Amino acid sequence: MRAADVGDPVMGRLLDHCGAHDTVTAIQTGTLPESLATDGSKEALLQRRLRRWRARLDIANPAEDLAAGEQAGARLIIPGDPEWPTQLDQLGHGRPLGLWLSGIADLRFSCLKSVAVVGARAATSYGVHVASEFGVGLSETGWTVVSGGAYGIDGAAHRGALAAESPTVVVLACGADVSYPSGHHDLFAQARDQGVIVSECPPGVPPTRGRFLVRNRLIAALSRGTVVVEAALRSGALNTAKHALALDRHLAAVPGPVTSAMSAGCHHLLRERKAVCVTSPEEMIDLVGDLGDDLAPARRGPILPRDSLSESTSRVLDAIPARGSIGPAAVAVAAGVDLSTTLSALGSLAAAGFINRTPAGWRLHKQALPPP
Amino acid sequence: MRAADVGDPVMGRLLDHCGAHDTVTAIQTGTLPESLATDGSKEALLQRRLRRWRARLDIANPAEDLAAGEQAGARLIIPGDPEWPTQLDQLGHGRPLGLWLSGIADLRFSCLKSVAVVGARAATSYGVHVASEFGVGLSETGWTVVSGGAYGIDGAAHRGALAAESPTVVVLACGADVSYPSGHHDLFAQARDQGVIVSECPPGVPPTRGRFLVRNRLIAALSRGTVVVEAALRSGALNTAKHALALDRHLAAVPGPVTSAMSAGCHHLLRERKAVCVTSPEEMIDLVGDLGDDLAPARRGPILPRDSLSESTSRVLDAIPARGSIGPAAVAVAAGVDLSTTLSALGSLAAAGFINRTPAGWRLHKQALPPP
Repeated sequence: MRAADVGDPVMGRLLDHCGAHDTVTAIQTGTLPESLATDGSKEALLQRRLRRWRARLDIANPAEDLAAGEQAGARLIIPGDPEWPTQLDQLGHGRPLGLWLSGIADLRFSCLKSVAVVGARAATSYGVHVASEFGVGLSETGWTVVSGGAYGIDGAAHRGALAAESPTVVVLACGADVSYPSGHHDLFAQARDQGVIVSECPPGVPPTRGRFLVRNRLIAALSRGTVVVEAALRSGALNTAKHALALDRHLAAVPGPVTSAMSAGCHHLLRERKAVCVTSPEEMIDLVGDLGDDLAPARRGPILPRDSLSESTSRVLDAIPARGSIGPAAVAVAAGVDLSTTLSALGSLAAAGFINRTPAGWRLHKQALPPP
Repeated sequence: MRAADVGDPVMGRLLDHCGAHDTVTAIQTGTLPESLATDGSKEALLQRRLRRWRARLDIANPAEDLAAGEQAGARLIIPGDPEWPTQLDQLGHGRPLGLWLSGIADLRFSCLKSVAVVGARAATSYGVHVASEFGVGLSETGWTVVSGGAYGIDGAAHRGALAAESPTVVVLACGADVSYPSGHHDLFAQARDQGVIVSECPPGVPPTRGRFLVRNRLIAALSRGTVVVEAALRSGALNTAKHALALDRHLAAVPGPVTSAMSAGCHHLLRERKAVCVTSPEEMIDLVGDLGDDLAPARRGPILPRDSLSESTSRVLDAIPARGSIGPAAVAVAAGVDLSTTLSALGSLAAAGFINRTPAGWRLHKQALPPP
């Protein structure tokens, strides 16, 4: 973990081929295992990597890392451990070599039903509001919120989850004991008390730009689906979205005002039909949940009393103009309904308050006027 | 036009079969033309319709309608006339029997490149703003705005088009000379001066609810595509959207805040993937325009100076932590780049302002900090 760049698939391939022990030997001796048959160009690449890794391995101190982890209250898990989230295996050779965890929640269990809620750091108050609602709503229905612990959308989603007493999962691009951004120190402390902080970096490691990008693949891979709440056209959240698509996870985007640059990234995903439009936590659960279970209630408008009218009564009502009054015979002709049916319909409509009788015939009640 | 309900396909079928003269004779005599072979159930339906139409024909006065039209400055066009928009033929038997027009613009020509901009009457200020922008933007690039002349989105779209001195097309559910809603009297007057008002109803006819719904099919059929700017879940605009889909026209929806009930209908269309997400007039034109022509400029964020760095320089920059300083040898190991390349990269990065030299080595310039 100290030797290779985080998520370096060349290391993953070598480890999968000959295991950790022989990989370390290969790095230390600068000699590839004989069983690794490669063509010339690949061998040159591997040799360059071995040199890069050796320089780092020379200064690495695993015992110190483990001691630092213990002191910081962070545990190290590797593939095969009971707490290892097996969905990370879908990252193939880019799978993390191990994860440092800090917090009381069990990572694997927490991520069984989880949704990544991601978005802009420079979120608007609208975005923060929606992210909190998603944080609360997902948590209250038993879904774990996974996010990156950043300012803006990430923080609001975590806070919503924490408010709902849910074990939220914070995936950091620095050591699990590092408070970055420092303004989220208390948020991270609460996340450790209720949930778990996850990192591929040993304790104490500061964040770098490169680590943010590879971190994003973990957020996407840990959860069943990712929802982008707010994102400018060039936002790290779109990088997470790309990982979600590459991993065949569900991808959703929350729309916002077209006048807001902070929703332009979401609208781009919708426009390209890469993301599903979701407007509520229920709709997100509908997307990522099990078929049949977890269906979002169908959205519909209010039921107007007009809906309960029979076809002929409805025709009679439609025949009564918005202005002025009309006699029953004229109504019958206009509606194309015979006179006795018309008279009975006029009676029902008056009783239901749709129309009023006037000296000149019938007129619409103000409430029943056609839309202006 | 006085006998049948607007858009009644039974009348359309009869007219297509035996022409206007024989149809009128059939209504007056109550006898179906012999050439019309039908089975029993259809014949019963036709007989009921003939009775309904006869009652109306008895009180119709075509000469009076034509005179009223002339007085109101409205002209009547029928299929085959030079001004007839042939795209209406796609309505099949539901095609209008004729159209009353009031205004200086040529309907057929105006609709060659046209977009329907529709939406809620109870629009929000956001919706009105967006509809105006679409009205102006579409018009300025030579596209005609078609809408229903209602309060809210319709009115804002028409006003935007009129402000851009474009021949907007107003399709009414009442006579082309009737100002409904009355608050749009001046808007309609201006539309007649620059564009054209269209109606299936003879002059003087008031609107009814039924007429609004069949009117919507005309708005969809006249234009190459429909964009719904704001719509509640139960909005007439969604009826227009349904017609657009049924007619194989392009359908688009403008997203808005998920907290706004007036955008819920748009989001529903997006969620069901019935509509394309559009956020600007350019994107709408991209959708309905000719392939190759009319492409919307690709949306992208600002280009950061970071983009112009070479791969190794970029790796060196990423190896410099957000906090504290680091020496060049440690940078080389962390970046996995050899020392001389690292030194040269550090020099370029300092010159470009990404990093600063400190007594302890190098540190990131505040502007180049990784995202918090």
